[in-house]
Order: sequence, then C-alpha cells, then structure tokens
Amino acid sequence: MKPVNVGIVGLGTVGSGTFNVLSRNAEDIARRAGRAITVTHVGARRDNPNADTSAVKVSRDVLQVVEDPEIDIVVELIGGTTLAKELVLKAIHNGKHIVTANKALIAEHGNEIFTAAQNKGVNVSFEAAVAGGIPIIKAIREGLSANRIDWVAGIINGTGNFIMSEMAEKGREFDDVLKEAQELGYAEADPTFDVEGIDAAHKLTILASIAFGIPLQFEKVYTEGITKITREDVSFAHELGYRIKHLGITRQTDTGVELRVHPTLVPASQLLANVDGVMNAVMVHSDAVGPTLYYGPGAGAEPTASAVVADVVDVARALTTDPKNRVPHLAFRADSLSDLPILPIEEVETGYYLRMHAKDQPGVMAKIASVLSKANINIEAIIQKDQVDDTSPVPLIMLVRKVIESEMNAALDTIRELDVLVDDIVRIRLETLVH
Amino acid sequence: MKPVNVGIVGLGTVGSGTFNVLSRNAEDIARRAGRAITVTHVGARRDNPNADTSAVKVSRDVLQVVEDPEIDIVVELIGGTTLAKELVLKAIHNGKHIVTANKALIAEHGNEIFTAAQNKGVNVSFEAAVAGGIPIIKAIREGLSANRIDWVAGIINGTGNFIMSEMAEKGREFDDVLKEAQELGYAEADPTFDVEGIDAAHKLTILASIAFGIPLQFEKVYTEGITKITREDVSFAHELGYRIKHLGITRQTDTGVELRVHPTLVPASQLLANVDGVMNAVMVHSDAVGPTLYYGPGAGAEPTASAVVADVVDVARALTTDPKNRVPHLAFRADSLSDLPILPIEEVETGYYLRMHAKDQPGVMAKIASVLSKANINIEAIIQKDQVDDTSPVPLIMLVRKVIESEMNAALDTIRELDVLVDDIVRIRLETLVH
Repeated sequence: MKPVNVGIVGLGTVGSGTFNVLSRNAEDIARRAGRAITVTHVGARRDNPNADTSAVKVSRDVLQVVEDPEIDIVVELIGGTTLAKELVLKAIHNGKHIVTANKALIAEHGNEIFTAAQNKGVNVSFEAAVAGGIPIIKAIREGLSANRIDWVAGIINGTGNFIMSEMAEKGREFDDVLKEAQELGYAEADPTFDVEGIDAAHKLTILASIAFGIPLQFEKVYTEGITKITREDVSFAHELGYRIKHLGITRQTDTGVELRVHPTLVPASQLLANVDGVMNAVMVHSDAVGPTLYYGPGAGAEPTASAVVADVVDVARALTTDPKNRVPHLAFRADSLSDLPILPIEEVETGYYLRMHAKDQPGVMAKIASVLSKANINIEAIIQKDQVDDTSPVPLIMLVRKVIESEMNAALDTIRELDVLVDDIVRIRLETLVH
Repeated sequence: MKPVNVGIVGLGTVGSGTFNVLSRNAEDIARRAGRAITVTHVGARRDNPNADTSAVKVSRDVLQVVEDPEIDIVVELIGGTTLAKELVLKAIHNGKHIVTANKALIAEHGNEIFTAAQNKGVNVSFEAAVAGGIPIIKAIREGLSANRIDWVAGIINGTGNFIMSEMAEKGREFDDVLKEAQELGYAEADPTFDVEGIDAAHKLTILASIAFGIPLQFEKVYTEGITKITREDVSFAHELGYRIKHLGITRQTDTGVELRVHPTLVPASQLLANVDGVMNAVMVHSDAVGPTLYYGPGAGAEPTASAVVADVVDVARALTTDPKNRVPHLAFRADSLSDLPILPIEEVETGYYLRMHAKDQPGVMAKIASVLSKANINIEAIIQKDQVDDTSPVPLIMLVRKVIESEMNAALDTIRELDVLVDDIVRIRLETLVH
C-alpha cells in the first residue's frame, strides 16, 4: 500500500522534532498505522541543523507545500495566526488534512477553520496545541465521552509552572527566576505570553470547547498573570498547607461556563500541587468517572512532536483501515506483532531494599558488606538501629543499587551461609522511575 | 438516523452503572456520537435494584442477547472466563461488536478472541479492563502512537493500593487493613485475586501487549503479592524517602520484555508514590514524549462504566460518521454546539487568600472580621504575624471560603474604607479541586 505523504511546514523546534520522530520510529509507526507515513515535502525559510532534510523536497516558499498534489496531510508548525491561517485555509481548500500545534490559531480562528474543513470533508487535528505531549484532547473528546464534564483545571504553561515551582521550592523572587528561565530557554525574551497567561488562555479556550461543546471564545477568558506573586505569599500559602499554581480553570455551572486563568492556591495534598518544573498536568472532573488527571511534558521538541505524530497516525489510520477496525486490538497490526521473549524474573535488573536481623556480635555488618562488595553490589543507604533491649535482634536495613536478580540471589545465599542472621532476609524491589 | 442498539450482558455493579450512564447522559452522548445509543436488551439472571430496566427487554438466559438480531454492540459484563468466552465468541460469530471490562478474559483468551473478531470484521474494545475509568488503553494505543515505549509502571489494583496507603499513612498492619477493606466492600471475601497480584497481572499483560506489540502472555507474568509487607518495612522505607506501592511493571530491554507485579519502593517525590487509597495511576515512559502519567479511579460502578461507554461511543462513531471525520473537532457535532454563556469573572465563586498590612492600632482585626461577617464571608484560617520592628506594618493573612467574586469585591472595598491598612490588599483565588 502506498505511503501516506506528509508535508511539514515550519522547521523550528517542533518541526525538526516531528521530522526526526517520524523518521526514527518509522517502522513502529507503520506497524501501528497499517501503512508507512513519509515526509515528502518540507516548507521552511531556512534549514535547521537538528533535522537532516537532504532526502526530501524543501521549499523556501512554504505555501508550495499546500499546493503539492502528492501531499495527504499538511502539518502546520510555523506558529502565529496570519500566514498560518492563510496556509491552513488553502490546504483545506486543496483537500488536505491538517495537523497543527498552533494554540493561538485554533483558539482565535478555530470556528472558521473547522467550518471550512467540514465543508471540504477534511480533518483538522490539534492534540499538540494543548499541554504538549499529554494526549489530553483525545482523553476528553474520546476517553471521557460518556461523561457530563463538571470542570477542567490545568497547569498548562510550563514556563509559568517552572517559575512558581522555583519560587516555592527555593524561596526565590519572581524576577530572579524569570531571568533564569530566560537563560535556560524556558522563557522568551518577551515573556508576556507565558507569564501574563495568554498562552494558557489559548489552551483553556480549547479545553472548554471540547469539554462542554461550546464554540471557541478566546476573547471571553478572564486572564491574570503571575507577575505580582511574591515570595511572601508563596511562603504564607505553604504555611497554610497550600501551593500557588498558575491554573487554567473552566467549569460548567447552572448559569454558564467559567473560563479563567489566574494564580490559585491548591491544597498541598492534591496531585496538581505536586506538578513541578516545566511539567504540565490537567485534571478533569466529570459525573461518571469522577476525577482523572493527565500529566506530562507540556513543551519541547519531541514531546510536542509526540502529539503531532499521534494526530498524523490517527489520520493515516482513518485513511487506511476498515473504519470498524481503525485501531488494531493490540495497538500494532495483528500480522506485525513481535516475538520478543518475556524475561524470567532472574534476569530482571532492579534496586533492592533489604532488611535483616543480625545476631548481636562484632563484625556482622562488615561481613555482610564484604559479601555485597565482592558481588559488585553497591549499597546506597544503610539504617542500623540500636537494639530495643538485650534480647531483640538488631535490624539492619540497606538500599542497594540496580543489580541482576540472579546475582542478588547468589549474594543473599552467601549472606545466609555466614550464619550471622537470626531470621530470613526481607527484600523488596526498588524502582526510581526516572528513565 | 436509527440509534445504535446496545445489549448489556450482566447487570451487577458495572452493568447497572453502564445502564445508568447511558441513560442519564443519553443526550450528550448522542451529540458526541452523532446518533442515539440505546440499550434495547439486557441479559441478567436477576434484577438489580440500582438499574430500572422496566422499559427494555430483559432475558434471564444471557445468551439470548447475542442472538438478538437488533443488537449492534454486545457489552459483556458478567466476568469470569467460561460463559464470558462462549458468549463473546458467539456474539462475534453473529457479527456483533464487543465491549468488555473483563481483564481475565482478555489477558487469558484475548489472542483467540481478537483473531475471531478480525476474521468477522468486528471490533473488541476493552478500555475498562485496565485501570477502570482511566482512558489508558486509548492513551497508549493512540495518544502515544509516535513513540517507542520504554516502560510502563502502574498502580492498577485499587484494593492493594488502599491497603498499602492505609499501612503507610496510619502505621497499620496488613491484616487489620484488609479486614477493613473487606467491610468497606473494597476487597472480596476471598481477597487472593487482589492481594496476590493476579488481578494486576491480568491488567499488566494487556498493558505490555499494547505498549510493545507482543501477544498476550499472562502465564509469563512474575507475580508477587503484598501479604508479607509489614508495618516495619513501610516505616523504614519512609525513613529512607520512599513509599512501598504494589506496582505492575513492564519494560522493553535489549534482550526481551520484563513483565512483573510486586511490591516496590518508589521515591516519595514521584507522583506515583502519592497516589493513595483506591485510586489507580499508570506511568508510561517513552522515547519522544518522555514520562506521562494517567490517574483516576480504577474501579467502581460509574468509573468503570465511563470506560465501557467510551468504547461504545467509539464503535458508534465508527459505524456512523464519515471515517475521515470520526470525532467532531470540538468533541460534539458541529450542529449541536451549545450556546451556554461565558460568565464574567464577577459571577465566579471561589475561595480566597487575602494578605493585608494593617496599621498597628487596637481593634483592626475585629473591624475587618466584622466587615467579612456582615457580608456572609466565612474565614477558614488566619495567620497574624508579630511585627518585625516598630515601623513594619503587621501582616494579616486570611483564607476565606467560597464567595461570589462581586461580593468579595464589595467587602474588600468596605475594608479599604476603614482606613486601617497601610497598602492595598493582596488577594489570590483558592480552589480545593475536590468536587
């Protein structure tokens, strides 16, 4: 079957990320989509050293991509609302499906764009426009389709959340953190869009419309930034058991829809209060399921590309497969499942928590440490408690770094043979979950 | 357009929840699906007082539902793997689409069932089989389709997590909490499936297959329960900065796939470590997006029904709409968007954090409290700090309960007129996010 041809317009951070993900994961993506997805045309005013486009057609006049008769899907990643709008409407007119990460374009011109798309029978997908790599559009439009949604509250601007997190964790002042965020590349030279909540308002506009089935109404969002939050307020909020987060909130009430972006105190025990740094999270409360929360990176080249490419795969699946079996049962086509072996537990590598009760005699700790050391097992932490009374055995707790289970088993057998323990070793596996 | 006809088999907790959600939210669901979805036939050995089935056909012989020529989608909610398997295979043979919440059926017989479904050109959906109301199947199969998935780690059994959370928070012993869980209805009289990790192993089997594109291999899951975890280990883990959670973990390595359920120490700063009670959460790490996490209720009548009905809507959308426009841009059909008004911020009700710097004179606090009291604004907490020196104003911090913004504004104006403050009032909105 002939590949689905994709044209990417804009080769900045997200454009190059999208190009690279589609290329690197091409094989897995084809197994999922049921057919190859190929970038055949890139529209970019200049090259990007992060993306090797030497094998594809590149046009400096980006409008040439939407005129290319070979292209099935146009991926719009130039940003802004002037050229992007013209380009998207032309592509729709030419019968192309659209995938975009452009929150401003959708929030401000989505009603017009969707009408044009519907008239031409094409699709406009915008998963990447809200909360970067988190599949929140899909979760709300499809995953929660059984529910009457009560409200949506989200940390939907990574720059703002980085600033609020640094102020909270390190007691720093707003201006100081903003300056660092600019140096790290998290914030623009003109940070207005992020710190004044305009970017979050664009995203909230989209969330409200898909949650409640209302037209996009960006101009009605109440928007308040974080520039006036002081270290003092962050500190008092902590003292009262709260964190201050810059939230976008939309709620359906008996009289209408709330649509607001502002700094908000949130109880410290809420997961949303514990979403730190540049990460995003969206909490949705609805009548059947109750609370659900979606967390992940809200920006960056490949996280955003993840959402863009998921939209491309969605369109490719729709263009390819029997509509009644759009998504393969096990995500990948049944005839392309992999025969990767399942590893026995002895071959699994994890960290460990160990608890032993040692006999109260000299040198026990040294003997045990020596066994672990000879087996190249690294101790990360130790707790050795004083004995409660003369007759209680001494509890010895150790955390050890990642080791193959069979090697751990062998070391524990050797420790048992030392005959220094009063009962068997308790061991619990440990995972840091960081990469 | 004629409705999509649904037959529900099994009218227990999830069956009655599904029946009720489809009925209560029928109008919104039709706006989303593009056509009405109607339950026309229920198969149940006995009635359930929680579901009023008087208006639909009820068969005591549940197999009559799969023989009903009017039924488009059979929703299998009887559980178990014997009758459920027979019933699902017959329904497939009769050309019906299947929606099921049955994790054991899919984990143990999914390969056979999917092959049968593919041969008949029908769809078998099973969102509710993993993590209840969290749309995790959709997130992995569709939302993350751009990624090579590295690993998935989840709290996927609510009973086990309730027990581990109670042990951690209250220093209780396993047996004691298990007994309470049984009394609360969270745990079965025979708790083996939950506390020995079998239920989690069923769910992990499914997660591994959709993450890595491998056949379902339940028999190869390494499974270790939580029955041997002691209060002592929970406490030592805390001391070392960790929480013990019963995790299902599957990871793709260079040599194969890890597939394991066991108690696991997780750093306390990880969101997964902070998922408490009967809630579930699944963390997915993949190459493009990095870490994402999905949180919500993993069991219960309506949370599970939310996932079941989402699958029904998915099938209805596939049967109804132009495949290229399966999901409406704004979740609801363009011709059925609602004209709910957007509320001005003055009509929004929130809690507030207030900070004032009062003049150092007697009775200031009483005067301010009196203004709030007259406006029916309830103070939830107060911090009044001693002045640092004679010249500093006294900071006065208050949290007030939910009030309409215009009423708050009026009260703040009255406080300003008291002329007891040295500068303007700082106010930040507060949301508890609990309902």
